[in-house]
Amino acid sequence: MSKLTVDSLNPAVRNVQYAVRGELAIKAEEYRVKLQKNLANRELPFSQVISSNIGNPQQKGLNQPPLTFVRQVAALMEYRQLKNLAPHVFPRDVIARADELWEEIGSIGAYSHSQGVPLIRKHVAEFIQERDGHPAYPEHIFLTGGASAGVSLLISLLISEPGKTGILIPIPQYPLYTATLAQYSGVPVPYYLDETKGWSTSANEIRSLLETIRQEGKTLPRALVIINPGNPTGALLDRPTQDAIVELCDDYNLVLLADEVYQSNLHHPDTHPFTSFKKVVVESRRDVQLVSFHSISKGVFGECGRRGGYFECTNIGEEVIAMMYKMVSVGLCPPLQGQIGVDCLVRPPKQGDESYALWKKETDTTHKVLAQRTSQMVEALNAVEGVNCVDSPGALYLYPKIELSSKAIAAAKAAGKEPDAFYALALLDATGICVVPGSGFGQKEGEFHYRLTCLCPGVGEYVGKLVNFHQEFSKKYPKA
Amino acid sequence: MSKLTVDSLNPAVRNVQYAVRGELAIKAEEYRVKLQKNLANRELPFSQVISSNIGNPQQKGLNQPPLTFVRQVAALMEYRQLKNLAPHVFPRDVIARADELWEEIGSIGAYSHSQGVPLIRKHVAEFIQERDGHPAYPEHIFLTGGASAGVSLLISLLISEPGKTGILIPIPQYPLYTATLAQYSGVPVPYYLDETKGWSTSANEIRSLLETIRQEGKTLPRALVIINPGNPTGALLDRPTQDAIVELCDDYNLVLLADEVYQSNLHHPDTHPFTSFKKVVVESRRDVQLVSFHSISKGVFGECGRRGGYFECTNIGEEVIAMMYKMVSVGLCPPLQGQIGVDCLVRPPKQGDESYALWKKETDTTHKVLAQRTSQMVEALNAVEGVNCVDSPGALYLYPKIELSSKAIAAAKAAGKEPDAFYALALLDATGICVVPGSGFGQKEGEFHYRLTCLCPGVGEYVGKLVNFHQEFSKKYPKA
Repeated sequence: MSKLTVDSLNPAVRNVQYAVRGELAIKAEEYRVKLQKNLANRELPFSQVISSNIGNPQQKGLNQPPLTFVRQVAALMEYRQLKNLAPHVFPRDVIARADELWEEIGSIGAYSHSQGVPLIRKHVAEFIQERDGHPAYPEHIFLTGGASAGVSLLISLLISEPGKTGILIPIPQYPLYTATLAQYSGVPVPYYLDETKGWSTSANEIRSLLETIRQEGKTLPRALVIINPGNPTGALLDRPTQDAIVELCDDYNLVLLADEVYQSNLHHPDTHPFTSFKKVVVESRRDVQLVSFHSISKGVFGECGRRGGYFECTNIGEEVIAMMYKMVSVGLCPPLQGQIGVDCLVRPPKQGDESYALWKKETDTTHKVLAQRTSQMVEALNAVEGVNCVDSPGALYLYPKIELSSKAIAAAKAAGKEPDAFYALALLDATGICVVPGSGFGQKEGEFHYRLTCLCPGVGEYVGKLVNFHQEFSKKYPKA
Repeated sequence: MSKLTVDSLNPAVRNVQYAVRGELAIKAEEYRVKLQKNLANRELPFSQVISSNIGNPQQKGLNQPPLTFVRQVAALMEYRQLKNLAPHVFPRDVIARADELWEEIGSIGAYSHSQGVPLIRKHVAEFIQERDGHPAYPEHIFLTGGASAGVSLLISLLISEPGKTGILIPIPQYPLYTATLAQYSGVPVPYYLDETKGWSTSANEIRSLLETIRQEGKTLPRALVIINPGNPTGALLDRPTQDAIVELCDDYNLVLLADEVYQSNLHHPDTHPFTSFKKVVVESRRDVQLVSFHSISKGVFGECGRRGGYFECTNIGEEVIAMMYKMVSVGLCPPLQGQIGVDCLVRPPKQGDESYALWKKETDTTHKVLAQRTSQMVEALNAVEGVNCVDSPGALYLYPKIELSSKAIAAAKAAGKEPDAFYALALLDATGICVVPGSGFGQKEGEFHYRLTCLCPGVGEYVGKLVNFHQEFSKKYPKA
């Protein structure tokens, strides 16, 4: 019989690209397996692979510790008998939380409501209300298996004319957006962030772009994706910019998709606070349709493996929400341990609770480490000739610009690679550090970047390797 | 600004139907909330809602107990300190299993390999090899968030021409298939199961159907979905039928999608054993392309809420597998607790292990209860005039045929409902039992069915209510 080939598959699927787990990540995995099999491997000039390609704080080698409260609640939900078999192990507030969740959910081995456990959605609504000072409604909240699942659902709903419907995405962007748009045959409409102004977003620039589209007689995009705090840029929007974006959405009838998964990754919260688009939309008194996404995978939680998150709909019609419900019901429900994680995210221990002191210590430590590491990395990278890195007030990433000589570009071409992918592959080969080339996120023609996470053990040694590599690479491919 | 409306969304999404969580399930949920708020509610003629619409063994009110081994391993993976804080609680083999998984995975808060943890895929391959007596390969196995996620991926890949590509599905079918086909604009090509022969599948009938399609000059379907054991029918294929199906797939170049999630739900395993399509394909020495699906949600596991499962590719090209990998990588990874569940599914405690006795007792009990309950329900339903129920050797469901009078059909029409949906709504209103009408799964024109699960507390009372209701309904709408 004749075999399936790539060319015989859904052509939309063929167009999907996802650089975060692309060629580099696959090669890094091969190195990891090699090292595992023979620790004293003499072929490789490094003893450890450092996966800086993905914001995965708890992965082996990075080891950001999980928060004890979350894991204790999770363990009690898994094996309820522990409450009686090992009562001394669990603080009172942990037991009370597990009891409350058990009362509502019963076994976490059962499917829940497809939109997520109603009580947990109620807690999410309370969290949002407390964060923003404006009401939120459990019926407008969907728990999801990570933010990605929610983004994918929304994009699939919004693409009403495959091959035609456009969605505005930032460049550089998190490639989930281009990948999902490709999968559903949506058209990415790129707008550029301004590196010279700290990767800022300009509503005016997007407005000009939309005017050009309108003047050309083309269909205007349906939605605008904003990632705040930014991925891969680590930028943070200020309130006037957010106000201007909401105004823009109102003027051009754009659904605002606000990816706010890094909202608690703030390195200088006093001077650079996070404001949700929910708050901005409500206070604008405009009827802008907003879907905002949050996740347990980021922040100081870092619970990527549980697959938990939520999205909130604002100013979205009930019949459209009913359509979302129908779609999520086909997948039955989000993972229960992800939902439990969301409950812990939105209802952390409070002052006075037995778990509070440990929770505070653990979260403070992680926040502090991330902030220190980020500024140390920025400083070290900026000290290198040919590297320029915008400082980051939030998220988990840096996106340094690298100068590549025409010799390096020619060598990349000869190897059939994008210049920054060529650089990143050489970096991996030399140091075991896996980053994602800027071509995976998008950048201006002729510019080159890479994204790296601010998650690493021993930042001094790590950033030292990055610096040394760049210097060696520049020697090998000097400027003309 | 103008609001999103259902008509402005992706039209493919508008066409999706998923009866298992449709109108009836939503109404049942409303009743449940009413009962919760006021237990002595006098409006309703029942005190409990029984959700027989969905194979969800551990849900509240059904309470199939989780397997202790699974939950102990899961709890140790959540909160590793338990090993030292409460060592007396865990059998040695549980600790050894958690240690082994920890050694491989590290924290379950980290994303894993997008295809699933390599060691767990190795264990899945060993399980398949032991089950079938033929080799299996970890690289051809994908761990998924339940079987549904895998089915959705495969269908999305196979629909190469939206609006044109066809996939053969059984009628009655599990509505995941029609829902996913609608979502990706694939064309369902129905073939009918034969109720008079115990809901059997006839390769010859499918062959005739394909010949008709060929003669009409239309494009042949690309794939054939087989659900074995059957959902909603509870039927089980015999080997000659399976051989004939594989031959058919070879002759017509059909990719075989084998939904085998009920493979361990066997009520009479000695006389009615399960044979995997992997085994049949390998032993046919035909190059038939097969993807087979399994899950931790069914069997005696019933761990629906974890969202775990896998699929295995047989005779599928490496480049197509690479494409699958790319697609799953966009979603990052399946939930880790689902993956842990798969490990427990494919590597249960063995004789000699400390956990074995309890595991054996728990699984034997659940198997026995399901078998007894199924035969008791079949017998009671068949004793009712106007109800005819095929006995079931496997899965979790019965799909009784009900005779509805022309008066009942007219009343349904007047209410704007399908006749069997009208019947099922009346059943819910009268008894609190939520089933799914046959129109959600498909049936021959003029026939009516409903699907109910064999999961219920107090089977005597439960089936008594079904019987009484049918009699009352028949009195209300008598034959002319």
